[in-house]
Amino acid sequence: MNIVVSLPAADKTEWWCQMLRDLMPDWNVYPIDKVPDPDAVTYSVLWRPATGAMKPFRNLKAIVSLGAGIDHVLADEQLPLHVPIIRTVGTDLTQRMKEYVALHVLRHHRELPAIQANQARQLWEQIVVPPATQRRVGVMGLGNLGAAAAELLKQIGFEVRGWSRSAKDLPGIQCYSGAEGFGAFLEGTEILVCLLPLTESTRGILNADTFNRLKRGASIVNAARGPHLVDSDLVEALNSGQISSATLDVFHVEPLPASHPFWLNPKITITPHVASLIDAPTGSKIVAKNIRTFQETGTVTDLADAKRGY
Amino acid sequence: MNIVVSLPAADKTEWWCQMLRDLMPDWNVYPIDKVPDPDAVTYSVLWRPATGAMKPFRNLKAIVSLGAGIDHVLADEQLPLHVPIIRTVGTDLTQRMKEYVALHVLRHHRELPAIQANQARQLWEQIVVPPATQRRVGVMGLGNLGAAAAELLKQIGFEVRGWSRSAKDLPGIQCYSGAEGFGAFLEGTEILVCLLPLTESTRGILNADTFNRLKRGASIVNAARGPHLVDSDLVEALNSGQISSATLDVFHVEPLPASHPFWLNPKITITPHVASLIDAPTGSKIVAKNIRTFQETGTVTDLADAKRGY
Ligand SMILES: NC(=O)c1ccc[n+]([C@@H]2O[C@H](COP(=O)([O-])OP(=O)(O)OC[C@H]3O[C@@H](n4cnc5c(N)ncnc54)[C@H](OP(=O)(O)O)[C@@H]3O)[C@@H](O)[C@H]2O)c1
Ligand SMILES: NC(=O)c1ccc[n+]([C@@H]2O[C@H](COP(=O)([O-])OP(=O)(O)OC[C@H]3O[C@@H](n4cnc5c(N)ncnc54)[C@H](OP(=O)(O)O)[C@@H]3O)[C@@H](O)[C@H]2O)c1
Repeated sequence: MNIVVSLPAADKTEWWCQMLRDLMPDWNVYPIDKVPDPDAVTYSVLWRPATGAMKPFRNLKAIVSLGAGIDHVLADEQLPLHVPIIRTVGTDLTQRMKEYVALHVLRHHRELPAIQANQARQLWEQIVVPPATQRRVGVMGLGNLGAAAAELLKQIGFEVRGWSRSAKDLPGIQCYSGAEGFGAFLEGTEILVCLLPLTESTRGILNADTFNRLKRGASIVNAARGPHLVDSDLVEALNSGQISSATLDVFHVEPLPASHPFWLNPKITITPHVASLIDAPTGSKIVAKNIRTFQETGTVTDLADAKRGY
Repeated sequence: MNIVVSLPAADKTEWWCQMLRDLMPDWNVYPIDKVPDPDAVTYSVLWRPATGAMKPFRNLKAIVSLGAGIDHVLADEQLPLHVPIIRTVGTDLTQRMKEYVALHVLRHHRELPAIQANQARQLWEQIVVPPATQRRVGVMGLGNLGAAAAELLKQIGFEVRGWSRSAKDLPGIQCYSGAEGFGAFLEGTEILVCLLPLTESTRGILNADTFNRLKRGASIVNAARGPHLVDSDLVEALNSGQISSATLDVFHVEPLPASHPFWLNPKITITPHVASLIDAPTGSKIVAKNIRTFQETGTVTDLADAKRGY
């Protein structure tokens, strides 16, 4: 019973190996460059694996994605697609994402960027905003993370709408679905939150056309994946005033290159992919539990669907 | 049935007069400098009245404070203390304060000031913070505003404590009361929120002694009144690192004078007394209703206690 672990940084790979060994003393856990017998490996634990990295492992029973998204695994065009992919999700991940979304939606709602710009000029100016009950927030993606975020926004008092692939019914939240529901979902939305998985249908969905359907001066919070956003469309919409401010946690290339124009755009707040981190001590417990359950029962609740893309 | 209105700005006084006239066509509503017969005035509507401003009105039945706090009315040493004082509170005011507190507590919790400082330097650095479930927040004052804010912080996931004068029992919130409970309330608190009324017992309560009892590196959110804070103690605690950051909405002198050292302190976020504004269209309805109820029944639920100071 052998497990292979691969993350881009060798020290993180070693750290996850150690955590899993502590939790699974009856298993052998190897970093990807030190596997004695690839055929003996039945599980792999991955974050952004290199192309073809899984090819030597012909007896994989499941691949564990060290994240809620599986796009970083599917990005490997040589991935053995018949192998089930297990997502890593949990209450900690959901909790952190809820907090992030609440913080950044409230920040735009209460015009804190403008208030902070005033502080830098020592300017005392009361900006009057409506209460959240009169502010329309739209959440794209109503999965584990999107549904939890939408529910908290509702508890805070916002008028919340949600959008997903299949139709949903969430208490107090106006739900829209599919391509046919997208226009109505966007109309009048003042703060748009993206919590979609990255798939062929969602890539580039935060584009000029989408921005133009929002209420003028709307704000964007992207906590999903960088390629959901068409970077140049955002810059243009910020210049035109169609979008007034944005918070971005994810980028096409991460770390965001120092030369990228987003860094110094005063209307963009950049957070370094921290909306919801998988804490290794908590995450390793979820991974160990999922591997054990899969080994015993042949399935887990957090299975992704590679064909669907999430 | 005559009402006198007094706010520091003449245009705001006129605006409130107009709003009240629209809602109370059977009443005469005068700005303070245009009252034809002071003896005919039975109600006054006030925000920061001048010293002695109420002396000419010998037949007042009630004074309406255009705010939840009454300190700005009691500050007039010549105030006729036998006249009941009606506070202006309501769901809008509570909603706005909840939002403000959630925003600024989350901001400190998620270390957004440090993340934004990194952005200015184009630095990508993941700062790992615990989930809110492992973050202890203390709310001083559990009245209309404090209790609502504490409840929302709890819903977000924080470990919440509250402190009030009389003992309270709020679901999911560890409650402390009185001077004897203050030390235990502060111990281990990482984010301290002040929503106390300004009275002789609470003036200067945000001082070095209080800061030293918090967890090292704690944050402060003062959304109550400027004189709750000893300004120089905060600056010292920020310099020593005992306090790592603060958000202040209220100040000893407002607008905060351009020369005040708070403005350019990178560890202080200044908001211009906007935590919870009384929106004139909403506020005037509450005021009109309170005056009518008082006139009919001799009392209202939102009566303050001048002796207690709030
Ligand atoms: N920034 C961070 O730190 C961070 C951390 C974790 C995750 N994430 C991102 O957050 C994403 C969401 O995670 P999750 O666990 O909530 O995912 P999930 O449970 O798989 O939910 C995905 C949601 O998106 C909807 N969706 C998928 N394709 C769609 C389409 N074409 N049109 C409309 N709706 C569509 C799904 O609809 P159905 O319900 O109909 O299937 C579902 O509601 C992840 O994929 C990842 O990219 C970011
Ligand atoms: N920044 C803004 O925009 C803004 C807007 C509105 C209000 N405010 C401020 O917020 C304050 C609170 O408003 P509110 O409507 O929540 O007031 P409230 O309903 O009168 O509640 C006051 C709370 O403070 C507690 N308290 C009073 N004196 C105390 C003491 N010596 N020790 C411990 N606890 C004490 C009271 O305890 P008991 O429950 O035992 O009486 C009560 O829980 C106002 O007075 C005002 O200064 C600020």
